[in-house]
Amino acid sequence: MKRQDYDMPFMLKYENVAWYENGEVKILDRRVYPREVRFEVCKSHKDVAKAITDMVTQSAGPYTAAGMGMALAAYEARDLYGEELIKYLEDAAETISTARPTTSTRLRKVTRGSIEAAKSAIENGEDVVGKIFDDAIDSLNRRYSAMNDVAKYLCDLIPDKGTVLTQCFGETIIGTMTRTLKEQNKDVRFICCETRPYYQGARLTATCISEMGFDTTVITDNMVAYTMENVGVDLFTSATDTITLDGHVANKVGTFQIAIVADRFNVPYYVTGMPDNEKKNRDDIVIELRDPSLVLGDHTAKDVKAIYPSFDITPPELITGFVTDKGVYKPNELKKYFDGEYKSYY
Amino acid sequence: MKRQDYDMPFMLKYENVAWYENGEVKILDRRVYPREVRFEVCKSHKDVAKAITDMVTQSAGPYTAAGMGMALAAYEARDLYGEELIKYLEDAAETISTARPTTSTRLRKVTRGSIEAAKSAIENGEDVVGKIFDDAIDSLNRRYSAMNDVAKYLCDLIPDKGTVLTQCFGETIIGTMTRTLKEQNKDVRFICCETRPYYQGARLTATCISEMGFDTTVITDNMVAYTMENVGVDLFTSATDTITLDGHVANKVGTFQIAIVADRFNVPYYVTGMPDNEKKNRDDIVIELRDPSLVLGDHTAKDVKAIYPSFDITPPELITGFVTDKGVYKPNELKKYFDGEYKSYY
Repeated sequence: MKRQDYDMPFMLKYENVAWYENGEVKILDRRVYPREVRFEVCKSHKDVAKAITDMVTQSAGPYTAAGMGMALAAYEARDLYGEELIKYLEDAAETISTARPTTSTRLRKVTRGSIEAAKSAIENGEDVVGKIFDDAIDSLNRRYSAMNDVAKYLCDLIPDKGTVLTQCFGETIIGTMTRTLKEQNKDVRFICCETRPYYQGARLTATCISEMGFDTTVITDNMVAYTMENVGVDLFTSATDTITLDGHVANKVGTFQIAIVADRFNVPYYVTGMPDNEKKNRDDIVIELRDPSLVLGDHTAKDVKAIYPSFDITPPELITGFVTDKGVYKPNELKKYFDGEYKSYY
Repeated sequence: MKRQDYDMPFMLKYENVAWYENGEVKILDRRVYPREVRFEVCKSHKDVAKAITDMVTQSAGPYTAAGMGMALAAYEARDLYGEELIKYLEDAAETISTARPTTSTRLRKVTRGSIEAAKSAIENGEDVVGKIFDDAIDSLNRRYSAMNDVAKYLCDLIPDKGTVLTQCFGETIIGTMTRTLKEQNKDVRFICCETRPYYQGARLTATCISEMGFDTTVITDNMVAYTMENVGVDLFTSATDTITLDGHVANKVGTFQIAIVADRFNVPYYVTGMPDNEKKNRDDIVIELRDPSLVLGDHTAKDVKAIYPSFDITPPELITGFVTDKGVYKPNELKKYFDGEYKSYY
């Protein structure tokens, strides 16, 4: 499967997300980007699992890394055949899928796909490593293509000379949105919330948008109300971790309060992504509590504590629309997304 | 004038705020506290002005530093007499008052007080340095005493076993509030917004509160809605930079959006501080735009910009009450504060 030739920011280019070649997987280290352009070089699938655990890559990055890690596992098992090879890949799949608890369902889907690809290669006498690699690229192609469709619907909502507020990183949609805006010849200004404690907005979103040629301003997470009142924002948009069938959104902590503030200023909030038909309502969302030391840093006193909820949940009444690959849905129409043909992208 | 013997957190103790002794002024460096306990040692009033400019101390710290700086100026001019001495002090007052543009009005008040003290000392044949020093301590006493009165009214609003959310630092009220809660034998849990980009909340508020023996948790500025929904907050309180006569509040950027979120969750917001009878409404508030490089840090890409508004303005409809030294006022009653006797504390 050939990768598609999208005009994308550096960190979203196929070879920088995660790439298998000659017995190693290279992953752009998003922890230090853009201050430093550094690749984590993984010599085994266990290194890839560790890179996922250590958050070398995040957002949708781990899914591609997982597929490439499976290609590497097949390379490690190049002297094995038949059931022995499959057993080796199944063990590797287990290691990679459990690298990060919150994303294990999707990681399991990816690695299951790799095993299916391997079985098909064995059956047809094809190169197993190459087939798993192609499957990983295929999966990236499907995501980029779906997010390209989402971007078209999103950009139709963004006015020329408008100002868009973003939260957290957003991954593929940031690339396809800016690419589509360029095609539409729109001049848009972006304001990116820095998204503490990991600064995904300041480091990743802002870098990708600026690289695509748009005016980009970072604000700290406490400047949203000031910005809406004094700078003016036409549209708030975020990606999402989970969209439930009844229109609740789990996304990076902070999204909920931006939506509350946007509501006060009558700024529309458009969520990009597809609903999850296995998640009925907010009770089906589990919010991971992460290591609070990331919040404390080295600037707090010894006895002070912290919390670090990874996500918060925004209720449907604060969401103007869900922008999917099939069009824009109001919260109460979301179930219609599953009418007719539908496919999962992970 | 003797300093009062309050039970206060380390950074609010008289000798740590700013202290003249033997020809030098020592100022606790709030930029690195609590990671490091470091004192800026100023050998001349110009060093004091520079320390104020460089934000070695902030919040109400500069006012005490200004008074102590004037004592140091008098020490520098110890061989001068009469008008020459006053001229020297007037020049020093000018240097110190203009050290930070946003606080120049109050700094001018303080340094004018120092000059009055000097004139009185000259007239009565007293020690000029000592008299200016006493005036600075006297000013601190007045503030601590007024904030002690404010704290009493505030603490009456805080329930035992309650949870209080704070924003930014708050200075004296943090000390007098925790001191009063201890006297009232109340068990209160505090949640402190970290207050990017300068982390006053994480570094200073949280340290002072924790030091006084209360359970203290830091959250990033984007966790307010999550915290109100999932942890529970009984009361939000902040100090203020300016309270206008019609009940608008200028305070550290972020206050406005916390107030919006608090409103959604029916969490009462109590502002501590006294109204400014020279500020009629929000048009009389000027919001300083500070150096955006503090927002960018070293983690953003080259072409990315930032803004850094020092304050935002919270409108009266989001404020439950103004807690002053004379009691608690609703926004529309605020003018009554000036009925009867009233004195300024700076």
